[in-house]
Amino acid sequence: MCWTVLLLLVTLCVRGLNGEGGGQAQQPGHVSVVIVGGTGDLAKKYLWQGFFHLYASKVSSGSTFSFYAGGLSPADKAAPVLFEILKAVTCSKNVSRERCAILKEQFLRLSQYRQLTSLEEYQDLATHIEERLQEEGMKETGRLFYLSVPAFAYADVADKINKSCRPADGAWLRVVLEKPFGHDFRSAQVLAAQLSGSLKDEEMYRIDHYLGKQLVTQILPFRIDNKKVLDPIWNKHHIERVEIVLKETLDVKGRISFYDQYGVIRDVIQNHLTEVMALLTMKLPKNLSDSEEVLQNKLQILSSVLPLGKKQAVIGQYQTYTAEVQQELNKTKEHVSVTPTFAAVLAHIDEARYQGVPILLTSGKMLDERVGYARVLFKNDVFCLENHNALHCRPKQIVFHFGHGSLQYPAVLVSKNLFKPVLMDSEWKEVADHTDVSVLGLPISDYYVQTPKEQREAYTELISHIFAGRRNSFISTENLLASWGLWTPLLSSLASVYPRIYPGGADNGDLLDVCLKGRDLSYTNEVVLIGSDQMGGVGQNGFHVMQGKFRSSDMVSGWSEELVERLAADVEEAAEAAVGQSGVFHLALSGGSSPLALFHRLALHHFSFPWRSTHVWMVDERCVPPSEPDSNFHTLHGHLLEHVRIPYYNIHPMPVQLNQRLCVEEDGGARLYEGEIGRLVNGSSFHFVLLGVGYDGHTASLFPNSKEDKLEGGLVALTESPVKPHRRMSLTFEAINRAQRVALLVMGKGKHELMTQLSRVKDNPNKYPVTGVKPANGTLVWYIDYDALIG
Amino acid sequence: MCWTVLLLLVTLCVRGLNGEGGGQAQQPGHVSVVIVGGTGDLAKKYLWQGFFHLYASKVSSGSTFSFYAGGLSPADKAAPVLFEILKAVTCSKNVSRERCAILKEQFLRLSQYRQLTSLEEYQDLATHIEERLQEEGMKETGRLFYLSVPAFAYADVADKINKSCRPADGAWLRVVLEKPFGHDFRSAQVLAAQLSGSLKDEEMYRIDHYLGKQLVTQILPFRIDNKKVLDPIWNKHHIERVEIVLKETLDVKGRISFYDQYGVIRDVIQNHLTEVMALLTMKLPKNLSDSEEVLQNKLQILSSVLPLGKKQAVIGQYQTYTAEVQQELNKTKEHVSVTPTFAAVLAHIDEARYQGVPILLTSGKMLDERVGYARVLFKNDVFCLENHNALHCRPKQIVFHFGHGSLQYPAVLVSKNLFKPVLMDSEWKEVADHTDVSVLGLPISDYYVQTPKEQREAYTELISHIFAGRRNSFISTENLLASWGLWTPLLSSLASVYPRIYPGGADNGDLLDVCLKGRDLSYTNEVVLIGSDQMGGVGQNGFHVMQGKFRSSDMVSGWSEELVERLAADVEEAAEAAVGQSGVFHLALSGGSSPLALFHRLALHHFSFPWRSTHVWMVDERCVPPSEPDSNFHTLHGHLLEHVRIPYYNIHPMPVQLNQRLCVEEDGGARLYEGEIGRLVNGSSFHFVLLGVGYDGHTASLFPNSKEDKLEGGLVALTESPVKPHRRMSLTFEAINRAQRVALLVMGKGKHELMTQLSRVKDNPNKYPVTGVKPANGTLVWYIDYDALIG
Repeated sequence: MCWTVLLLLVTLCVRGLNGEGGGQAQQPGHVSVVIVGGTGDLAKKYLWQGFFHLYASKVSSGSTFSFYAGGLSPADKAAPVLFEILKAVTCSKNVSRERCAILKEQFLRLSQYRQLTSLEEYQDLATHIEERLQEEGMKETGRLFYLSVPAFAYADVADKINKSCRPADGAWLRVVLEKPFGHDFRSAQVLAAQLSGSLKDEEMYRIDHYLGKQLVTQILPFRIDNKKVLDPIWNKHHIERVEIVLKETLDVKGRISFYDQYGVIRDVIQNHLTEVMALLTMKLPKNLSDSEEVLQNKLQILSSVLPLGKKQAVIGQYQTYTAEVQQELNKTKEHVSVTPTFAAVLAHIDEARYQGVPILLTSGKMLDERVGYARVLFKNDVFCLENHNALHCRPKQIVFHFGHGSLQYPAVLVSKNLFKPVLMDSEWKEVADHTDVSVLGLPISDYYVQTPKEQREAYTELISHIFAGRRNSFISTENLLASWGLWTPLLSSLASVYPRIYPGGADNGDLLDVCLKGRDLSYTNEVVLIGSDQMGGVGQNGFHVMQGKFRSSDMVSGWSEELVERLAADVEEAAEAAVGQSGVFHLALSGGSSPLALFHRLALHHFSFPWRSTHVWMVDERCVPPSEPDSNFHTLHGHLLEHVRIPYYNIHPMPVQLNQRLCVEEDGGARLYEGEIGRLVNGSSFHFVLLGVGYDGHTASLFPNSKEDKLEGGLVALTESPVKPHRRMSLTFEAINRAQRVALLVMGKGKHELMTQLSRVKDNPNKYPVTGVKPANGTLVWYIDYDALIG
Repeated sequence: MCWTVLLLLVTLCVRGLNGEGGGQAQQPGHVSVVIVGGTGDLAKKYLWQGFFHLYASKVSSGSTFSFYAGGLSPADKAAPVLFEILKAVTCSKNVSRERCAILKEQFLRLSQYRQLTSLEEYQDLATHIEERLQEEGMKETGRLFYLSVPAFAYADVADKINKSCRPADGAWLRVVLEKPFGHDFRSAQVLAAQLSGSLKDEEMYRIDHYLGKQLVTQILPFRIDNKKVLDPIWNKHHIERVEIVLKETLDVKGRISFYDQYGVIRDVIQNHLTEVMALLTMKLPKNLSDSEEVLQNKLQILSSVLPLGKKQAVIGQYQTYTAEVQQELNKTKEHVSVTPTFAAVLAHIDEARYQGVPILLTSGKMLDERVGYARVLFKNDVFCLENHNALHCRPKQIVFHFGHGSLQYPAVLVSKNLFKPVLMDSEWKEVADHTDVSVLGLPISDYYVQTPKEQREAYTELISHIFAGRRNSFISTENLLASWGLWTPLLSSLASVYPRIYPGGADNGDLLDVCLKGRDLSYTNEVVLIGSDQMGGVGQNGFHVMQGKFRSSDMVSGWSEELVERLAADVEEAAEAAVGQSGVFHLALSGGSSPLALFHRLALHHFSFPWRSTHVWMVDERCVPPSEPDSNFHTLHGHLLEHVRIPYYNIHPMPVQLNQRLCVEEDGGARLYEGEIGRLVNGSSFHFVLLGVGYDGHTASLFPNSKEDKLEGGLVALTESPVKPHRRMSLTFEAINRAQRVALLVMGKGKHELMTQLSRVKDNPNKYPVTGVKPANGTLVWYIDYDALIG
């Protein structure tokens, strides 16, 4: 009877072991574990403990192990250090004292220190491993190298491992790497390329220890287990915002030489918080253990995050940081570091499901408390008529509480007025006996709370995942590069931003509070909360622009942002006047990058723009299919048309593609467009034409020294560009100069030289086509930003 | 010195008087005021007081007055009643006792009772007025008739006034009417038509006494005065929701004979709360005193409110109401009234500025407190890192507090962390010395508070507006009909809904709390807050539908809503499968009304639908320009395409209009569409075709007994419909039957007979074209709702 039970237990245990790998099943056999840097801080603090836990949990399944600490020091110096570390490992609380003593003794016996500097020493290690396997007649399962060394050494160590320590076919090689994995997209790419010379992608296990946190590993399972309830509310209609927060109380003293090169965004936001964001928002995989599917879904979300620029972030630095830098890096008192120790970033995901949902990622050193959490706050969809304090009237949120904070333990919390979540698995328990604590604005008794029965260190957790080959818990090269791709532009644009200095701790007060304004983020207390100037009000006097003359036409000038605000307001004014007068507004828009800011401004701020009565025409188009990114229409569509409610029939792309070919004279595309203009636009006179100017002085697609018929009578012509794609379709001067209003938008330092020339030359449309813009009965206004005007 | 000051004051006073009319300037002269029903309740309670206030304020400007109380009783009975009423009027507190006594004496002398029943008596009144004018040599300014009589008498009284009491040219006639103005659109229209036989529109002053409330009259001025700050935040990006609430503690005892025919929606929501909603959301007029502009802007908003149906409202009735009805209306104990005494309605405005902003209108009798307010709650755009309780971290709102409630006085309140509003005008003051009171969740000290220096009755206010000819403060015929147009469909659909019974007062608990789910509203406590069933989850087992066979094809049946949910889920599944396989999904959609529910479902619930990879084709089209409401494309565009992010180039309207003419064979539209299908759709085989069935058994635009070439080889054909517009373009059976999946959606009792026939007949496409749908290699599924299936 007893035997049967035992047998059953063993069976379950083995099945559990085989099952958990997802990908690769583990046959009991021998595993060699090598911690390179095995007597360092990380190894001492977490790794040996993690491997001991692995050993203790797997030894009864038949797997055998040997453990090596590798290091640069000779064995006689390092071995005693290792011995001290190993003596300090502890057992889980469910292991008896006797068994613990036995396990520790065995573990000590299986572990040894080896100096690993030269290739020879690696080869010696390999020989040693193989001899032992042979001596003991063991089948080899795999070799696990944990690289607990500075990142600059990765490529070299990986090369040595590749050259000397690969196991025979049938056994795996897993090499574990710790961040930092580069400091930007480029360096991460270089590092990845270096490593790929030595290791296959599936052999690399890049650790983001956040992915080992019990709460973080449960985000996807939680979303899947509660899919039926979450699916209908996990979207912009129900989610008010998402906050991913990691607050620390410590400073970075002693780590400055590392930290000062990285800062808070590289240190924790690019990796930990970004991973959490991806787990919260990615499409759920059909199969959680399908690493490829999980990766692809994660990549999809990362690529859907709208670009992060200076306006999406604020940064701070604690007051004593600069002094610490001066001291630790031996700098003079003049040295100033702009490395941020605090940052808040506002992200948006460009998917229908999450459109407009603010995702705030924030982290900092020297704050008032140590806490990490991800909070999904739902919109208040209840109206309480009488008792406003009833449970169902209160805020609704899901909190993944990673640890610390007022709660002190990791837990997932779901507002009771939201839903009762499924209990995660047998390793989790519900917490019902609440102490008098409040979590993110609600008393703990307002939540359903689940917590792990036993708290485990992230490293311990991850080490078991490495052993099990669960690649999902690690950062693949693609994943890494996608994340750096997202963060690198922000890091570059922040390089010139001076961080706000904060005193640290509770003294910070509201200094680091932030305010979300659409896609932008700012500190709350540097400005009146809602003042007309930051709002980009449309009042005529709200603009910081100047007016003047350029080439004897009216000119408006200002910093690019104000300039675009003004132009947008002018377009709206023209639209309202036209609609008021004739019921319709005919707007012709140019391609190129300058108008993009205008499109965004119109889409995000001009709610009363009469789009329903507006016809959008094109000034010019490249001869490419309209669905290609190169197409002006494609840009116009993606940045403006898609975001406003303009009737389909009011949109007039240029017919560059007819009879399945592009811009063939005989297909008569230009004449067709001309006919359409003639039919719909009164006197073929557009109400508003927006033009840009190229570096060579071209405007629309009318280029210098061209021999085309642009000066003949037609309104639309095929033209030839000096740059690819060469063939274009364009409104002619005839069409442009019939317009009631023409705006010439010029922005950026790159245009300054041209502007200087243009301010001096006479009309010479052959050399400077833009000088041919002279509306016959309408007005021309130049909109030139200070960069282009002043340089 | 003193004289100069006095002169200045008089000048200001006269200017104020002239200025305030906006339209018509008031020259001092004689005004005759006739209150028809002048000894009734309303007259006693409000009207004489209001006219006395008018008299007192205008008498010094040179205007003279005479006042008449008209009534059905003979003078000997009614005159003493009038005398008692007149004796009771009071002066404003800024009038001295002596002056007050003089004013009251004069007022009494100028007032008299006249029996007004027959036309002769009206003629006598007119003669009397004219004689007095002549006797005293007074110039006539106008005649003001206040009809304080039941609505059924309006037409008759107006007719008599018209026939006998019109003043001579140069003097105005103003006839004041009190609600109810009809009980639905039709009756309001009839009443308006009757009145228009006697009175010009500009002679009618329809009173909604809410428009006389000091706080309500200040909504537009407040919005204008604070335009610079409000403009950027008065939109969907910043407003979380709007609540317009009128709570009463009283029951309707004694008024049941009136109330039971009206109920709370007709009594206060259709008029008072709707007007407040319009004032809060309408486009600001350039000129506040331009009545026409204000009216047009108001009409625009009313017509932009999305249709209100059963799902946008909940209703209730206080427990003792039915007993009161039985008693007051002499009904038996079996009599049950479904008249609501409580209602909450969720409105949305279909304008870019307010898209998705919930506007909640709610009112009821027998609630826990008496209070009226409109609250604009802004989104929380602040993230507080440390001290979450700082002022700038708290909710931000603007409250127009009409009166009563915890505050007890009318006031406009603006959260201090929002902005400091401009002081409205000299008649308003800021309140700074706050008592310890909380308004809508925030202590009063969190607000900037403004209140009128002197509280005035709405009637007093409105009477002065009538005198000044401020038509803005009254309900024009167009305004009235627009409001009924909005509410009538809801009232009809609620006619069959049984109201929730509530005990009344504080005992209501959370019985009347409501929950907003997208566009729908429901009571919170009748359902689990977020359960999968109300969410329309997409889990395959979540649908209450049955499966079976119809005409030997698969059939899915259910109540219309579940059926549409299922169809939408099936379309998405097909889309995902197609996109997964070939990267693209070709969907052909029919016109008609049945698909609308599907379109809404897809647009509002299917966030992960792969629209970017979907091509939308048309099954059929009417030969009308695509911008006309009759056009299938127009419907498709307005109900689906506009709401999803589908690329412009993936939309394929049928080319019914070519060379500026409709469906001319020679223009080759059908061939053109066929060519487009051939080029883009693999094997011209759509992934999914959605069809409907007409009462005559037609499907697509393939009609019974037609001689067209629909059976020939082409994929697209011009066809002829028996109903207008006759000419159509349609996919042929050839095209339909090539599809991989065809769904035939049939809904509504009207289709039951046809379904019964179809279940019996053999294939006979000539008689029943729908029987010609037989996909060659694909599948056909019938989606038939219970109404159509079971009748």
